[in-house]
Amino acid sequence: MSDKPGRTILASSISKTYVEEITKKIESMRNIRPNGPLLVGFLANNDPAAEMYANWTGKTCESMGFRYELRRIEEKDFLEEAIIDANRDTSVDGIMVYFPVFGNAQDQYLQQVVSREKDVEGLNHVYYQNMYHNIRYLDNDKQLKSILPCTPLAVVKILEFLKVYNNLLPEGNRLYGKKCVVVNRSEIVGRPLAALLANDGAIVYSVDINNIQKFTRGEGLKFSKHQVEDLGNYSDDLLRECCADSDVIVTGVPSPDYRFPTDYIRDGAVCINFSSHKNFDDSVKSKASLYVPSTGKVTISMLLRNMLRLVENRQKLNQL
Amino acid sequence: MSDKPGRTILASSISKTYVEEITKKIESMRNIRPNGPLLVGFLANNDPAAEMYANWTGKTCESMGFRYELRRIEEKDFLEEAIIDANRDTSVDGIMVYFPVFGNAQDQYLQQVVSREKDVEGLNHVYYQNMYHNIRYLDNDKQLKSILPCTPLAVVKILEFLKVYNNLLPEGNRLYGKKCVVVNRSEIVGRPLAALLANDGAIVYSVDINNIQKFTRGEGLKFSKHQVEDLGNYSDDLLRECCADSDVIVTGVPSPDYRFPTDYIRDGAVCINFSSHKNFDDSVKSKASLYVPSTGKVTISMLLRNMLRLVENRQKLNQL
Repeated sequence: MSDKPGRTILASSISKTYVEEITKKIESMRNIRPNGPLLVGFLANNDPAAEMYANWTGKTCESMGFRYELRRIEEKDFLEEAIIDANRDTSVDGIMVYFPVFGNAQDQYLQQVVSREKDVEGLNHVYYQNMYHNIRYLDNDKQLKSILPCTPLAVVKILEFLKVYNNLLPEGNRLYGKKCVVVNRSEIVGRPLAALLANDGAIVYSVDINNIQKFTRGEGLKFSKHQVEDLGNYSDDLLRECCADSDVIVTGVPSPDYRFPTDYIRDGAVCINFSSHKNFDDSVKSKASLYVPSTGKVTISMLLRNMLRLVENRQKLNQL
Repeated sequence: MSDKPGRTILASSISKTYVEEITKKIESMRNIRPNGPLLVGFLANNDPAAEMYANWTGKTCESMGFRYELRRIEEKDFLEEAIIDANRDTSVDGIMVYFPVFGNAQDQYLQQVVSREKDVEGLNHVYYQNMYHNIRYLDNDKQLKSILPCTPLAVVKILEFLKVYNNLLPEGNRLYGKKCVVVNRSEIVGRPLAALLANDGAIVYSVDINNIQKFTRGEGLKFSKHQVEDLGNYSDDLLRECCADSDVIVTGVPSPDYRFPTDYIRDGAVCINFSSHKNFDDSVKSKASLYVPSTGKVTISMLLRNMLRLVENRQKLNQL
C-alpha cells in the first residue's frame, strides 16, 4: 500500500488556520471581553467518553483564549433549568450540551431550550432552517450573521481545505461538477450536510439504512433550496453504483462495527469520516487520494468560530 | 357487566360546550373575519386514514363557521415550501400538517417550520416550553396568550368535564390528592400531559416501554415546574402497583395490538384512551366508573379554540 500516492490528512492540520484566525479575533475583542468569552458546557450523563470530550473541549478553549466552565448536572431532570439559568446569565457567551442526555426525543426538546443567541453548536431550528434555505442573516438589515451547525460546517471546511471546493469557480458554485456520497442522514449532520453540498453545486447521494436519495441544487426553486429525489431502497448494488463516479465519500455511521466497503471507492476519491467510530478500514488508503480519519478538531474550531460570531451579534444588538 | 354502574362517555358529548363557545366567538369576530378564519391543512402522505381525518376536520371546521382548505402535496420534498408560503400569506389564520410525513426526525423539523403565529396544534417549541413552565403569556405585558398543544389539552378538558378536577379547590391545584397513570411518554402528548397533570397537583405515573417515572409538582422549584423521579424499569408488576391506587388511567399506545390489562384497573377509576387504536378491552366497563374510548372530537375543539386565540393575538399585534 505504501507505493500509493494517497495521503492521510489529520484534522489538527486542517484546523490550524482556524485556530490562528480565532486566536487573533479573541485578541481584538479584549475591549469587550477582557478575559475572553465564556463557554459553558453541560454534562448530564455518566458516559466516560463524554467526560473526556468535555475535558478536551475545555483545554482547547482555554488554549485559545476562551474561558470554559463545565457544569455537571447530577439529576438529568434539572438540566433544563440549568440551561435556562445560563440563557439568562449575561456573563455567559456560549452554551453547549454534551448529548445524548435522555437518548430520545427529549434531547431534541433540550436542544431548543438553549437560547438562540448562545447556541454555539448551531442546533437551534432557526439556524437549520436558514441553512436549508441559504439564508445568511438573522435580520432584514443584514447586521446579524446566522451561524451554521458546527459538524456539517466542519465537513465543508475540510472539503475547502482539500481543494475539492474549486475557488476558480464563483462562490456558491464551487462544487459544480462534483459528486459526493454522504452515509448518514440524521437531522443533526447528514441531511444538513447533503443540503449544504447540494447548495454549493454538487450532486449528493444521501445514504441511510432505508434508502438512497439524490440531493441537487433546485433550479429556479422559489426558496433557492436543494431538491431531493428518491433513488430507491438501500441496497449494496445501488450504493456501489453511486460510488462508482463519486469524487467524495463522507461517512458518519455511529457504530463500532460499520466499515464502508473499500472496493466501492473510486480510485483517487476523497474520503472523510465524521463518526466517532472508525468507518473506514485501513485499506481505504489504497484507494483514497486524501483521507481524513476524523473531524473533531475542525468541528471544535467551527464551534468557537460560531461563538465569536454570537458575541459579535450580541454586541451589535446592544448598540442597536 | 350491565349491572355495573359505570358509564361510557363519548367525546362528542364532552366537546359540545366547546363547540358552542367557539361558534359564539366566531360570530363575535365577524367584524375582523367576515367569512370566518381560514385553516389550511397540509396532507403529504397517501394514508387513507389521514385522508379521512383531513376530510373530517374540514367538515367540523365548516360546520362551526371556519373556512378550511386542504392542500395536497404530491412531493413530500415540496411540503416545507408550501408551509412557508402559508406562513407568509396574510389570508391564512391557521396551519396544520397531517403527520406522519417522513415518519422520522424530519417530521420534528417540519413541525417547527409552521410559524408560531399560525400553529393551531401548538407544536412549536415555545408553546411546549411555556407549558412545562406554567407560563401563560407570550409577552411580558401579558397581552398575548400562549396556547397549549391540543391533544394533551383535550385530555385535561376531559378530566375537567368528568369532575376529576375538583373546582372546590383553587385553580392550579384541582387535581390535588389524585393519582394518574399515563401510558405513553412521547414528546408530543405523553410527557406534556404528565407535566400538565402534575402542575395541577396530581401524582402522575408516566409509563413507557422502558421505565416508569413519577411526575409531581416540584415544591419550591425556581421555575414552578413539575419534578420527575425514576421508579425503575418497566415491569408488569410495577405498573400493577402504580395502578392499584390510581384514580385515572390514560392510554395512548399507537398500536392495534396493545390492550391495557383490565385487572390492573382499580374499581371505579376513570379511563381515557387518546390513541387512535382501541387500548382498552370492552371489559374496561366492568371496572371503570367513567370510560372515554376516544378523544378526537375534543382535540379538534381545542385546535379550533387555539386558532381563535391565535387570531386574537394577531389582531392585538396589529394594534400594538
